[in-house]
Amino acid sequence: MLNPASEQFETSLRAALPEACFRPLEPRYLEEPRGRFRARDALLLTPGSTAEVSEILRQANAARVAVIPYGGGTGLVGGQVGVGLERPVLLSLERMNTVRSVHPAENLLIAEGGVILSNVHAAADAAGRIFPLSLASEGSAQIGGLLGTNAGGVNMLRYGNARELCLGIEAVLADGSVMHGLKRLRKDNTGYDLRNLLIGSEGTLGVITAACLRLFSQPASRGTTAMVVRSPRDALTLLSQVQGRLGEGISAFELIHRTGLEFLAEVMPQVRLPFAQAPEWMVLLEIGLSGGLDADTALEQIFVEAAEAGVVLDGVMTSSDAQRDALWQMRESIPEANRLIGAITSHDISVPIETIPDFIPQAWERVQAIGPFRVNCFGHLGDGNLHFNTYPPKGEDRDRYSDWRVDISRQVHDLVQEYGGSVSAEHGIGRLKVGDLERYGDPGKLAAMRAIKTALDPAGILNPGVVLRAG
Amino acid sequence: MLNPASEQFETSLRAALPEACFRPLEPRYLEEPRGRFRARDALLLTPGSTAEVSEILRQANAARVAVIPYGGGTGLVGGQVGVGLERPVLLSLERMNTVRSVHPAENLLIAEGGVILSNVHAAADAAGRIFPLSLASEGSAQIGGLLGTNAGGVNMLRYGNARELCLGIEAVLADGSVMHGLKRLRKDNTGYDLRNLLIGSEGTLGVITAACLRLFSQPASRGTTAMVVRSPRDALTLLSQVQGRLGEGISAFELIHRTGLEFLAEVMPQVRLPFAQAPEWMVLLEIGLSGGLDADTALEQIFVEAAEAGVVLDGVMTSSDAQRDALWQMRESIPEANRLIGAITSHDISVPIETIPDFIPQAWERVQAIGPFRVNCFGHLGDGNLHFNTYPPKGEDRDRYSDWRVDISRQVHDLVQEYGGSVSAEHGIGRLKVGDLERYGDPGKLAAMRAIKTALDPAGILNPGVVLRAG
Repeated sequence: MLNPASEQFETSLRAALPEACFRPLEPRYLEEPRGRFRARDALLLTPGSTAEVSEILRQANAARVAVIPYGGGTGLVGGQVGVGLERPVLLSLERMNTVRSVHPAENLLIAEGGVILSNVHAAADAAGRIFPLSLASEGSAQIGGLLGTNAGGVNMLRYGNARELCLGIEAVLADGSVMHGLKRLRKDNTGYDLRNLLIGSEGTLGVITAACLRLFSQPASRGTTAMVVRSPRDALTLLSQVQGRLGEGISAFELIHRTGLEFLAEVMPQVRLPFAQAPEWMVLLEIGLSGGLDADTALEQIFVEAAEAGVVLDGVMTSSDAQRDALWQMRESIPEANRLIGAITSHDISVPIETIPDFIPQAWERVQAIGPFRVNCFGHLGDGNLHFNTYPPKGEDRDRYSDWRVDISRQVHDLVQEYGGSVSAEHGIGRLKVGDLERYGDPGKLAAMRAIKTALDPAGILNPGVVLRAG
Repeated sequence: MLNPASEQFETSLRAALPEACFRPLEPRYLEEPRGRFRARDALLLTPGSTAEVSEILRQANAARVAVIPYGGGTGLVGGQVGVGLERPVLLSLERMNTVRSVHPAENLLIAEGGVILSNVHAAADAAGRIFPLSLASEGSAQIGGLLGTNAGGVNMLRYGNARELCLGIEAVLADGSVMHGLKRLRKDNTGYDLRNLLIGSEGTLGVITAACLRLFSQPASRGTTAMVVRSPRDALTLLSQVQGRLGEGISAFELIHRTGLEFLAEVMPQVRLPFAQAPEWMVLLEIGLSGGLDADTALEQIFVEAAEAGVVLDGVMTSSDAQRDALWQMRESIPEANRLIGAITSHDISVPIETIPDFIPQAWERVQAIGPFRVNCFGHLGDGNLHFNTYPPKGEDRDRYSDWRVDISRQVHDLVQEYGGSVSAEHGIGRLKVGDLERYGDPGKLAAMRAIKTALDPAGILNPGVVLRAG
C-alpha cells in the first residue's frame, strides 16, 4: 500500500533539499491536454540536480509515497496525471534544464531531462547540426518525458524515434540509486540494455535525468511539397516511388485527410491551407539531400513522374523557408484543431504499411456503422503510423457521444489487432490504454513486464497505475 | 544449484520431442574460435520449432538444468562455451533456419533464429533489397546469436548495429513462456522494450527464436576506396570531410594499421594487398549514394581535395566489383590472420571519437612499456570502435607471454575507462569479460541487471556465468 505525501514526509524532504525544490502547485500540473484525466492534489518537487532526484526517490521509496515523473505535461495518454493517488509526489525536472555539453565532431550532445525540445534544437543549430526529433508539442515537451514515452514525430521515417536518437541515459531508479550511462559512444556492448528498458517505460521504472542525444548534419538541400493524391493506396505508391529514387533522403511523409483541413478552416482560420479546395487526401513530403543534389529539382521530377502516372493530382512546391514553414504549421496545427473540435476517441495506431490501403476504409466503415461520426485520419504514413480520431457530427458536442466511446475504440482496436498492428504506435500506454494493453498485449510479454516492474520497483512507487495496473 | 542433464532428464525430453532434436555432439560445439575456452560435455538439442524450444526450457527450468543458447559458435568472448558447467543443454537453433517471409514493400523480413547471416543477405538480395549487417563471420553466424550479442560489423556507421536493424523478436523465456513480438511495425509503444532487453543479453534472459529485420534499398551507386593517411588524426579529418560532403552516404569507414597488413602478408599471402608497400595507416572507405550521384566521381573529388590538403598520401580507386571485393576480402581477412598469428590479448573497445587520436598512441605506449609486443590496431573508426590487439614479437609463441595477459588488459582497459570508453564495444561480455564488467561497469546498472536476471530467470538456468557471475 502507498502512503500520501504527509506533512512529516515533506518536513523530512525539506531538511535534505534546498528551498528551490519546493514550488507552489499550479492547477496545470494536475491536468492533461485532452481533459480526460485530472488529479486532485500532489506535492510538487522541482529538484535541481541528479543528487536531489536521488534523495527524493530514496525517501519516497522508504516512505512508500507514489512519485509521478513529470516533463512538459504534453503526454496524450494521462501518464502524467496521478488519478486515484492520494497526494503523490509530482517530480518535475523543469529546473534541470541545462544542455551539459555539445560535441559537433561526434554528432552528439548531452542534455538534462528537463530541457525543452526546442532548446535542444537551438543548441544543435548553434553547433551547425540538427536534432531531428520534431513534433507538435516541441515548445513544451522535455527530453526526459520524450524519452520516457519514446516519442515519435514527423522525422521518424528518416532518423528514428526518441529511442533511436539516444545513445545513453543517466537515470535514478526507484530506490534512489543512480545509473550512469552518459558515455559518448555509439557502440557499447557491456551488459543489458537498460537504456532502452527505461526509454518508453513512462516513468514506471526510473527517472531519466540526462541523455546523450544524436545529432546530424543538416542536409545540404531541403525541399518540401504538398501533393494531392486520390487515396492512401496512391500515397503509398508515391512513397515507394520517392524511396526508390531518393533512398534515405526522405525526411517526412505525412498523410492528411480532408477532415483535418476542414477542422483547421473551422476552428483555426488563421492557418494557411495549401489548396483552395480541401482535397480528399494529401501528402506532405519533405526531403533532405546531400551535396551535389538539388532537392527542389528532385521534387519537381518526382511530381512530373507521379502526375504522368496519375498517382498525384495536384501539387504545391515551396521555394522559400516561409512557404515551407507554412506547410509545416498547417500539419502541426492539426492536433490543436482536433483538441478544439473535441474528439470522441483518439487512436494512435500502426499497421503493416502494405495493409494501410485496406485498413483505412475498413476502420472508417466500422466507425460509421456505429453512428454518424466524423473521422480525422492523418499521420506518419511512411512509418505505418496513423492517427485515427473520431468526432461528433458538426455542431454537436462530444459529451453527447461519450457512451459510444468504448464501443468505437473497441471496434477500431480490434481491427488493428486483426491486422497485426499496434494500439499505441507513439503515444504510449499511460493510464488511458492500460486495459488495451491487457486485452491486446502478448501475455508472455506482460508477465515479463510485471516481473521486471517488481524487480526494479518492489514498493511500486514509480507512476503507479501507468502502463501496468497497480498491484 | 544447477543439475547436469541426466539420463532421466534426457528420457523425459525424448518423450516430448521428435527424434530430430537429438543430434550427436561434435567437438566443435565445445570450442570457440580463439581457443580460450573449452567445455567438457553437453547435451546437444536441436529444436525445429519455437514450441520445441519452449518445451526444452520448460523442462530444463523445472529440473534446474543449465541451458546454453548456441548460434553459429563464432562469438569471441566465450559466451557459447559452458566452462565449469556439468553437462548443460547446448541449445542449437541450427534447424530453425527458415526465412519465414519477405516484405520488400515494407523493407523487412522475418527470419528464424538459426538462419545464417549470409542466407539473410541472399533472401534480401532476391527481393531487391539489402540487409546491411555485415561482418567477417557472416558465413556461419546466425541471426539468434547476432541479436543475442548485438553484433556490430562494418556497416554500423550507416545502418546501425544488430539492435537497430531489428524491429521485433519472438523469444522463449527461462520458464518456457513465449514472447510474441514479430509485428511488422516500425512504431509500437505498447509497454516495456523487452526486445532490446533480450538483444545483447547474450542468451542469459531468453532465447531469440525469430526476428523481424529491417531491409534497405541498395544505394543506386556504390564506391569503395583505400586511402593512405599519416595518422588516426588525419583519418578523422578525412571522415569529417566525407561526412560534410555526403552526409549519411558513408557506408563504412575502417581504419587499418600496418601490423594488420603485415600479418596478412605473413600468414595469408594469398590475400591481395592494396598498396605495394604497407602504409603505416590506411582507411577503407565505402559510400553508397542515391540516384543522380555517381559514387566514383564523389570519391575522386574527395581524394583530390584530401590529397591537396595533405590529409591523404595515396589512394586506390576500385572500378569493378572484383576490385571492391578484393579490398573487402583484405579487411575481412584480418581477424583470421590475427587468429593464425595468435593474440596475447584482444581488446574490443570504443572511446569518444574525438579522443581517438590521443588514445591510440597512449595505449600503444602503455603496452610497449610492458614488453616488446606487436600491436594490431584496426576497426570501425566512424563508430569510435577499435580492435586493439597485442601479439608476441615475430617468431615467438604467445604462450610464453600468457602471464602478461592480465597486466596488458588492465593497462589498456584502465585507459579506456579514463577516456570514458567501453571495454566491449561490439563483442559483448561473455565469460571473458565478466570481471571487466564488475570492475568498469556502473554499480547502479549492475545491481539493476542482477535484479532483472533474477526476475526473469529465478533458477538461473540461462547461460549461467555469462555476463553476470553465476550466483
